[in-house]
Amino acid sequence: MNFKIIDGGVTAPKGFKAAGIAAGIKKSGKDMALIVSQQSSAVAGVFTTNKVQAAPVLLCKAVTAAGKASAIIINSGNANACTGAKGSEAAALMAEFTAAGLGVEPSQVLVCSTGAIGVSLPMDIVEEGVLSITGAASVEGGQAAAEAIMTTDTVSKTAAVQLEIDGKTVTIGGMAKGAGMIEPNMATMLAFLTTDADVNQSDLQECLTAASNVSFNRISVDGDQSTNDTVLFLANGMAGNSSLNKGHADWASFVAAVETVAMDLAVKIVKDGEGATKFVTVNVRGAQDNIDALKVCRAIANSLLVKTSWFGEDPNWGRVIDAVGYSGAELDPQKIDIYYDDFCAVKDGCSAGPDVIEGIAKVIAGEEFSLSVDLNLGDGADTVYACDCSYEYVKINSEYTT
Amino acid sequence: MNFKIIDGGVTAPKGFKAAGIAAGIKKSGKDMALIVSQQSSAVAGVFTTNKVQAAPVLLCKAVTAAGKASAIIINSGNANACTGAKGSEAAALMAEFTAAGLGVEPSQVLVCSTGAIGVSLPMDIVEEGVLSITGAASVEGGQAAAEAIMTTDTVSKTAAVQLEIDGKTVTIGGMAKGAGMIEPNMATMLAFLTTDADVNQSDLQECLTAASNVSFNRISVDGDQSTNDTVLFLANGMAGNSSLNKGHADWASFVAAVETVAMDLAVKIVKDGEGATKFVTVNVRGAQDNIDALKVCRAIANSLLVKTSWFGEDPNWGRVIDAVGYSGAELDPQKIDIYYDDFCAVKDGCSAGPDVIEGIAKVIAGEEFSLSVDLNLGDGADTVYACDCSYEYVKINSEYTT
Repeated sequence: MNFKIIDGGVTAPKGFKAAGIAAGIKKSGKDMALIVSQQSSAVAGVFTTNKVQAAPVLLCKAVTAAGKASAIIINSGNANACTGAKGSEAAALMAEFTAAGLGVEPSQVLVCSTGAIGVSLPMDIVEEGVLSITGAASVEGGQAAAEAIMTTDTVSKTAAVQLEIDGKTVTIGGMAKGAGMIEPNMATMLAFLTTDADVNQSDLQECLTAASNVSFNRISVDGDQSTNDTVLFLANGMAGNSSLNKGHADWASFVAAVETVAMDLAVKIVKDGEGATKFVTVNVRGAQDNIDALKVCRAIANSLLVKTSWFGEDPNWGRVIDAVGYSGAELDPQKIDIYYDDFCAVKDGCSAGPDVIEGIAKVIAGEEFSLSVDLNLGDGADTVYACDCSYEYVKINSEYTT
Repeated sequence: MNFKIIDGGVTAPKGFKAAGIAAGIKKSGKDMALIVSQQSSAVAGVFTTNKVQAAPVLLCKAVTAAGKASAIIINSGNANACTGAKGSEAAALMAEFTAAGLGVEPSQVLVCSTGAIGVSLPMDIVEEGVLSITGAASVEGGQAAAEAIMTTDTVSKTAAVQLEIDGKTVTIGGMAKGAGMIEPNMATMLAFLTTDADVNQSDLQECLTAASNVSFNRISVDGDQSTNDTVLFLANGMAGNSSLNKGHADWASFVAAVETVAMDLAVKIVKDGEGATKFVTVNVRGAQDNIDALKVCRAIANSLLVKTSWFGEDPNWGRVIDAVGYSGAELDPQKIDIYYDDFCAVKDGCSAGPDVIEGIAKVIAGEEFSLSVDLNLGDGADTVYACDCSYEYVKINSEYTT
């Protein structure tokens, strides 16, 4: 690919500043982040498909539909979900406070929240925080912003790549947070991408949707899909390239570069999944079609029995084939093959030989491995990135305070 | 209801004997059970819907389709699943050995297996075990049989009821095992019902299907559906009643009595779910239809975040409404009400008041409580019985040996 991975996050592209501060919404630590573009940007968004959607998600959908934005204000520690009319008002106020601090229109401000559901935002604290953060944004602030959106995450997550378009250097940056309620169709997952490329808005949306489908929509920590999942992408055009669109000679390179940033962030979310000790790439091929392949991927990636066996390094292919069987995909039990990395464990639906247990055990002792199922029926294929389920996951989620 | 709950299990009805022995399939403990009817019985069965089905499931389906059986031979410690042609042969041999020992036709013997997937049965041990168990069946053997089918179960599970039909005392008995891979559509769950009632075979099947749908198909431990789930019901007619069928005046009483036994066993399976510390009745009402109500029940009952919050006694209604939102059911987020026992926690999709956290905490501190969701849309309703997800669940399933 004709692009290179660079250090940095959302402020790597030209004309973006960011900040992260401790506003006091959480008991301790950073809990408010801001991303600002020097110029109004084309904006694209991908949102949770949960029918219960938080107030900020509804606000972001409206701004994204209008197509332009200058800033994203984000808080952690409170999801502003299931908070009724008061919650919608709070999200609108967050946009207004931010717009006032930055000197832009409120309609140019996107709002994201993550944290506990059903608790009203403390608006006095929010107002004071926004006042402070709008004065603090800087090119150096990308890292602080990435830290401020963390909830149960143990590490901050950023990524950036650079490529040439029309002889101009175009940069794409990003940051994201996990780490629970992570399910294939968006989760309490927030991800923010920025670029200085000039990109046609509707094509930007198409690019983000495609990139999300192979990255953020193919990860699973616990199978729970959140009320607040949001991926936003701002393109401010400051790289000076001729406007990118689907017809542009470099479009494929740009999309590949965006996918690289999205995939890097998505993998970081899974690796930092609550309590995760293993990173597992679940491949399915030979399915009747791609839809069936995805069903099998998800059945395996979301099976509690499979995930706990990974944690225990139990070479238990029986739980995998069991999940394949209830996935809902078309299959012939006597045609199923299963591989751990390159080791064939199951052939024609049965144990592939006397050394299978030992062979699987060797592979799953590693921190990263792949599990590949071949249904030997057709050309359908897909991949989902998953982690195991450990004591620590139960600990985090039984002790996490509402 | 005009029936009474009595002590006992599968040998409570007239003409049934049972036994449970340690044949040596497991490293230690009882691992083989037998149920024998003095007369050939009408038989009904309900089986896993997993597309990967164990050899004994396929054998039981064939015998059940023929309509008559005299005995059920069961082993724990090995599921005889994903064992290919050799596995089918092993299941057939188990029936043959049993038939020879009892002096009945092999076509009259049902076979069930539970345990590890993908391992061939040690047929020499099985043959010796069957030889021994067929000589050991007695009216007192019901309890030993219930113990011999246990895998990760911590207690054996039996139930029995008695009612009068045509002035004759009719008894229904049962036994079951859990305790993991328990999902609404049958799991590594085996349940066996017996009755001395004389019942028309096709109506017996209808009765068992109906009873399973409100009991065994409404429980969830971990959302994993097994390759071996089986519920069998033998009716040997020795009570001397006039043959029961759907037109009989006492049919409804008989069905209610069967449901009582099935429900009692199903509840015992959930309460003994792997690592379970809480028993939660998840009710949904006001759904557009019953199908939607069941979707919401299952989304809640299978949510890892909800289950870990129950374990931690975290008063986290946000995770519940989140699961409602991704259940796939039609809903209006602003019409959702949620109750913990009789305590209203969520009204119109928002917190019902300032004392909600305290109120929920009080209810979920108990070992048993109900969680009721009202979608306020229509008349659809359903109920699923669930347990929490604890450290112990992870321990059991990460250490369980293939």
